Amino acid sequence: MGRVYNFSAGPAVLPEEVLREAAEEMLDYKGTGMSVMEMSHRSKAFETIIEEAEQDLRDLMNIPDNYKVLFLQGGASQQFAMIPMNLMKNKVADYIITGQWAKKAYEEAKKFGKANAIASSADKTFSYIPDCSDLPISEDADYVYICENNTIYGTKYKTLPNTKGKILVADVSSCFLSEPVDVTKYGIIYGGVQKNVGPAGVVIVIIREDLITEDTLPGTPTMLQYKIHGDNKSLYNTPPAYGIYICGKVFKWLKKKGGLAAMKEYNEKKAAVLYNYLDQSKLFKGTVRKADRSLMNVPFVTGNEELDAKFVKEAKAAGFENLKGHRTVGGMRASIYNAMPIEGVEKLVEFMKKFEAENIK
Amino acid sequence: MGRVYNFSAGPAVLPEEVLREAAEEMLDYKGTGMSVMEMSHRSKAFETIIEEAEQDLRDLMNIPDNYKVLFLQGGASQQFAMIPMNLMKNKVADYIITGQWAKKAYEEAKKFGKANAIASSADKTFSYIPDCSDLPISEDADYVYICENNTIYGTKYKTLPNTKGKILVADVSSCFLSEPVDVTKYGIIYGGVQKNVGPAGVVIVIIREDLITEDTLPGTPTMLQYKIHGDNKSLYNTPPAYGIYICGKVFKWLKKKGGLAAMKEYNEKKAAVLYNYLDQSKLFKGTVRKADRSLMNVPFVTGNEELDAKFVKEAKAAGFENLKGHRTVGGMRASIYNAMPIEGVEKLVEFMKKFEAENIK
Ligand SMILES: Cc1ncc(COP(=O)(O)O)c(C=O)c1O
Ligand SMILES: Cc1ncc(COP(=O)(O)O)c(C=O)c1O
Ligand SMILES: [Mg+2]
Ligand SMILES: [Mg+2]
Ligand SMILES: [Mg+2]
Ligand SMILES: [Mg+2]
Repeated sequence: MGRVYNFSAGPAVLPEEVLREAAEEMLDYKGTGMSVMEMSHRSKAFETIIEEAEQDLRDLMNIPDNYKVLFLQGGASQQFAMIPMNLMKNKVADYIITGQWAKKAYEEAKKFGKANAIASSADKTFSYIPDCSDLPISEDADYVYICENNTIYGTKYKTLPNTKGKILVADVSSCFLSEPVDVTKYGIIYGGVQKNVGPAGVVIVIIREDLITEDTLPGTPTMLQYKIHGDNKSLYNTPPAYGIYICGKVFKWLKKKGGLAAMKEYNEKKAAVLYNYLDQSKLFKGTVRKADRSLMNVPFVTGNEELDAKFVKEAKAAGFENLKGHRTVGGMRASIYNAMPIEGVEKLVEFMKKFEAENIK
Repeated sequence: MGRVYNFSAGPAVLPEEVLREAAEEMLDYKGTGMSVMEMSHRSKAFETIIEEAEQDLRDLMNIPDNYKVLFLQGGASQQFAMIPMNLMKNKVADYIITGQWAKKAYEEAKKFGKANAIASSADKTFSYIPDCSDLPISEDADYVYICENNTIYGTKYKTLPNTKGKILVADVSSCFLSEPVDVTKYGIIYGGVQKNVGPAGVVIVIIREDLITEDTLPGTPTMLQYKIHGDNKSLYNTPPAYGIYICGKVFKWLKKKGGLAAMKEYNEKKAAVLYNYLDQSKLFKGTVRKADRSLMNVPFVTGNEELDAKFVKEAKAAGFENLKGHRTVGGMRASIYNAMPIEGVEKLVEFMKKFEAENIK
């Protein structure tokens, strides 16, 4: 079988070019006589891989020198604990609840101090981003936490919250490298790479140096201290080396594509193909408030569960994979990350039109 | 360049057959039209991968039904904290210090309770395993901890300690699947896979079910609770999917080779080639007490640092990679894991003989 169009929310489609290179280098990486999987993480060859990956990411995101880049394990979920354990000096943090992942981070933070839910869009099934221009930020908040792109619900912050001077911490797992960002506005930007960047098993943390301190909460495991990983350039213990290598290839692919400004343009064009169709369809409709629509995750429904199921099934048979919505919400969701070519979205819309014609009463 | 003989202590050599298959399946895993890296961890295809991996491991190690197998992130180093956080009900544990990794685990445990060093071989640079037949096991010890094979120093327990009824916890990172084990003797067997099993980024924990409880120490992150991962069959969050897939292939390769009894025989034969030569060499000598020699990691020295460096350099030029001893001890170390063919060791010994002839006064 050929390659399918894979609309998975994560792990997700990767650039074919990157996979081809990885396959070619599997038994002998650049004349080393071994696979990157077999390589000591203290070797010159791997040192070059991780240093180039970091530098390419710095170039792509224009990361200032006073931020460290960490390649860690444990996924985004482990950051839900690592962030309060390292940052909660006053034991107070404010969370904006825009979906399940923000909520999980909030629940985890409660283990370590006072976590306040200062805004939420739960009232309308997280189908919008609350107004964050004048929130009741806690006076002694150690940070304000957001999930910038909500994978499940398909919303995205178009303006960052007004944190009233407090440190902003953002989970960007599902919008990582999809458009340019101003890193200086954040204290921490982090994300699991398995959506827009690489294979599961690596989480990238971009953290302002003054937030990396020794005085973590008592009982913080060594492996959950940013300082340990920062001081050791992500090589305190054996890192997820193969995943970092693939991320590095994706960074190079993004640079060749023109960087994040070019990706933003491409992603906007790509998303418009789907949103424009949804807006005029008599069968399908998007579930998110227009102003808050994500470029990466596009949830939609027919309004009829049986018809949704039929659509997902027929789409799969036609080579469009993983269009089922998240198990907690139902309907459909097309995740159209950087590596999804526009042809994939165009063909999906063609298929939806055909399905609409066949199924509209 | 062709493949080298890679004596790295980890990440380390993998079976060529496994790497070939992975390369072939990189763009299209068994007709799914996608790479395993791109696959939702909730998909049927991945479910099969992880379930087969677990079953094959159970077959290989003969793991009883009352043990769970967990595929986690964070490496062995994260287990140093996860073990006390989950097991220290009385806040007391006994550690046997046979090298740097046991010591690190011991130091980490001190964060969470009273950790006792009940035996040590530090007096002779960890070149032997202490007599563990009658140790002062603490009456209220929650467990007794060992590092079963000491990667850096090249020692291995040939008999397990008498724990006087207490739970035995063992780090088997560098002897994982090298020979049959009696799982029933342990409460927890765990290891990072990047030595004998797969690529860095996966740690496998085999844990007796009654040790998986909800009452972990206060402040234990969700991601550091065995119960969360046990209840969710290692799919609480996105697992290190590609690494698990490669481990699965290695398990199948081991089964084809005849399982762990056959591996033990092969590993003994392989190690004997090197040890027998060391024992009669006038230039090189092994550094470990004979009774405690590891089948996996073989440290040796000439007794002259300059000559050691010369040897490592010339060996590298001849296609024998990573023979330098650990940065903390110097000398040489040949790691000869499951995937190192006996030819590799034979050729190394040939090379050593030549070097000896050229360099002996
Ligand atoms: C926005 C967001 N945050 C966090 C997570 C959890 O990531 P992980 O599975 O790496 O823990 C996800 C996963 O889907 C996500 O979409
Ligand atoms: C016996 C042993 N335990 C633990 C570790 C640490 O493993 P990790 O790097 O996965 O944390 C090592 C790594 O070399 C090791 O050899
Ligand atoms: Mg969400
Ligand atoms: Mg519509
Ligand atoms: Mg050791
Ligand atoms: Mg000798």
